[in-house]
Amino acid sequence: MERLPGFRDFYPEPLPHVDVWSADARQYVFDTWRAVAARYGFREYDGPPIEPLELYTTKSGAEIVGQLYNFTDKGGRPVSLRPEMTPTLARMAAAHERNYKKPVKWFAIPQLFRYERQQKGRLREHCQFNADIVGESDVAADAELLALLIDTLLAFGLTAQDFVIRLSSRKAWHDFFHQRCPDSSKDYEFFQIIDKLEREAPEESARKLAALGFAYPEVEEFIKAGAPTPELQVILQNLAARGLESFVRVDYGVIRGLAYYTGVVFEAFDARGEFRAIAGGGRYDNLVKLISGNKVDMPALGFGMGDVVLLELLKARGRLPAFAPAVAVYCLIEEEALRAASLGLVQRLRAAGLSVEYPLTPLKPDKQFKRALELKAGHTVRVDRGETGLQVRARNLATRADRVAPLESAAALLAPGPR
Amino acid sequence: MERLPGFRDFYPEPLPHVDVWSADARQYVFDTWRAVAARYGFREYDGPPIEPLELYTTKSGAEIVGQLYNFTDKGGRPVSLRPEMTPTLARMAAAHERNYKKPVKWFAIPQLFRYERQQKGRLREHCQFNADIVGESDVAADAELLALLIDTLLAFGLTAQDFVIRLSSRKAWHDFFHQRCPDSSKDYEFFQIIDKLEREAPEESARKLAALGFAYPEVEEFIKAGAPTPELQVILQNLAARGLESFVRVDYGVIRGLAYYTGVVFEAFDARGEFRAIAGGGRYDNLVKLISGNKVDMPALGFGMGDVVLLELLKARGRLPAFAPAVAVYCLIEEEALRAASLGLVQRLRAAGLSVEYPLTPLKPDKQFKRALELKAGHTVRVDRGETGLQVRARNLATRADRVAPLESAAALLAPGPR
Repeated sequence: MERLPGFRDFYPEPLPHVDVWSADARQYVFDTWRAVAARYGFREYDGPPIEPLELYTTKSGAEIVGQLYNFTDKGGRPVSLRPEMTPTLARMAAAHERNYKKPVKWFAIPQLFRYERQQKGRLREHCQFNADIVGESDVAADAELLALLIDTLLAFGLTAQDFVIRLSSRKAWHDFFHQRCPDSSKDYEFFQIIDKLEREAPEESARKLAALGFAYPEVEEFIKAGAPTPELQVILQNLAARGLESFVRVDYGVIRGLAYYTGVVFEAFDARGEFRAIAGGGRYDNLVKLISGNKVDMPALGFGMGDVVLLELLKARGRLPAFAPAVAVYCLIEEEALRAASLGLVQRLRAAGLSVEYPLTPLKPDKQFKRALELKAGHTVRVDRGETGLQVRARNLATRADRVAPLESAAALLAPGPR
Repeated sequence: MERLPGFRDFYPEPLPHVDVWSADARQYVFDTWRAVAARYGFREYDGPPIEPLELYTTKSGAEIVGQLYNFTDKGGRPVSLRPEMTPTLARMAAAHERNYKKPVKWFAIPQLFRYERQQKGRLREHCQFNADIVGESDVAADAELLALLIDTLLAFGLTAQDFVIRLSSRKAWHDFFHQRCPDSSKDYEFFQIIDKLEREAPEESARKLAALGFAYPEVEEFIKAGAPTPELQVILQNLAARGLESFVRVDYGVIRGLAYYTGVVFEAFDARGEFRAIAGGGRYDNLVKLISGNKVDMPALGFGMGDVVLLELLKARGRLPAFAPAVAVYCLIEEEALRAASLGLVQRLRAAGLSVEYPLTPLKPDKQFKRALELKAGHTVRVDRGETGLQVRARNLATRADRVAPLESAAALLAPGPR
């Protein structure tokens, strides 16, 4: 029986097959995301992986709807596996907005789903680091969020040579549009054309732009000029005060596909342009109001960073640590008469916080020692018959030094090893 | 817009409402599960949250099928949100069994789903700690797994006064059945009656047992006598060698509902009997063979521990730690002219691994200080004008002691604080 297409199995390293993913690498990514979020004072939240379909269909652009992993549940409800976290965050923040001091800084690591035609490298699920700031309209929040994004990538060992944040502004594009087109109902259609500019043939884009009354060259010229808006200037200064300005480039070629963005938007890319976007986000000041049915009005902004592109990039750049089975201690049991005492020793060491392995069943001493090496144990221990009774003999496998102690003080012989 | 019935929203503490769950408490539970699993040398894996329906319908008892959160996907495939992890584990272990040294000790923390009639306290999802040992038929593995279960509960601060493991044997019941009934096709039906014995009226159970040719009193007597099988005796001795025997009680009242169990089975309960089972598991030596279509035959055993009952129990017994927003450092910005330097200081401290908050926008000094206290900051820092230029002044909020240093050495003034 096979897993469904577009889904992943995560195995412990060393990986048994190229077709599966590393559970260790994923956990390393999650741990790093959590650690950086904590440094920035972001608190964790989560919501249901399934939401009413309405949460997405009425609030997002048409593009996302066709990609949803939606179905009708046994109670007849139209529902969807969550394709993104932002609508859930908006729902949750609106529901209890009075109970949290603004601005709220929250993060989540949801698994997200989509149902698309299968393509190479396009999965039907991924995990995403979502960080959002709710309740602050000042661009100081945009700068704080961008700093978090940059520091997250730095925490994985990536450098300014590896990635760049392309910073843009929906507002700048909004102004560009409205100075040239009186029909404001067409703006989302226009934004979609801009969003696809880099992926579509120029003639195709030119044709679509012309249909809305725009000339392709003036759009090109606007992107090329790329003069930062006053808002973007403030953000760049803020990032410069943190020493982070070199990671950011104003680039109006970015506009983001989703309908709900209202202000600053940005995407993180690998510097060589070999991968899809590593992360993307921006300001969505109207979404909380929309989702809450006009009950709560709060400005908000956020970004998402998926695990798939990030892991591919880290692998390609050699920035993933080596993962391997490893225990602190391997307990040798060379005499079955000492098994009970050995189990007591194992228990004592584990209770002291050490990771300990031992042969579950009788095994030749050389095979036990081989297993200890495979598990990269820092120490072996064994119960010995001493002159005054049973004792523990611990060997440091790096130095080969032996130490002996009474069973009760076994843990003191050993320091916690790597996991 | 509301979340779907039976699903949970997880908020940061302090919780805004009784109707939501604590994201902090959940993460504490996950972290504890991971830490104890590591001590026992278990490695993490994960699979897709959606699997082909067939993985469950052909392998499990009829009871679970009616509870599945299943649907037809857009490609016409009958699929189900995973109701349990064991079939996925069996599928994964069988797929790459040659690449891992047996016995394999693996754990996962999946979110699981079911679609049942809504009852108070019966959710449609929960998260579950799953630990399994694959490839070892000796009961030494059963003892190792039970020790992990006990140590996991101990790691949450629970004691022998709080919980008990009821240890039983499918084999013992199997023998009981076959000594009295020649029709072995009826054994699962019989096991289901035993599984429901404690929840059903005695007359009802007696009627069902009689239909299979069993007398209620002989069943009662078998449970009451409860003499451990030779297998269970070995397990009890093994646990005694670890000093864990007091947590376990042989109790044939437990048999487990799922069809696939073949040997030792067990459930963990709160000692006062106020909650549903905290955890349950056992040996399922035929499942890997079944799932792999007879390609791989490996003995296996495991348990699952859900987050819902565990969190309820920990709350009721006062064993959950206090969770609160907390940062190591709050950076006061009392003069806007010093904001850029302050942002540089914030960046420097975060780069040193400290969690740091600061006012995103201008704020009165007393409000900043109040915020620092709310966030339980260990220190405040601020950029000061010293005689030789800008410097940092750090205050330990516990001792009220001030220290001053050049900006470059700010991090040295502070030790990492609580998250």
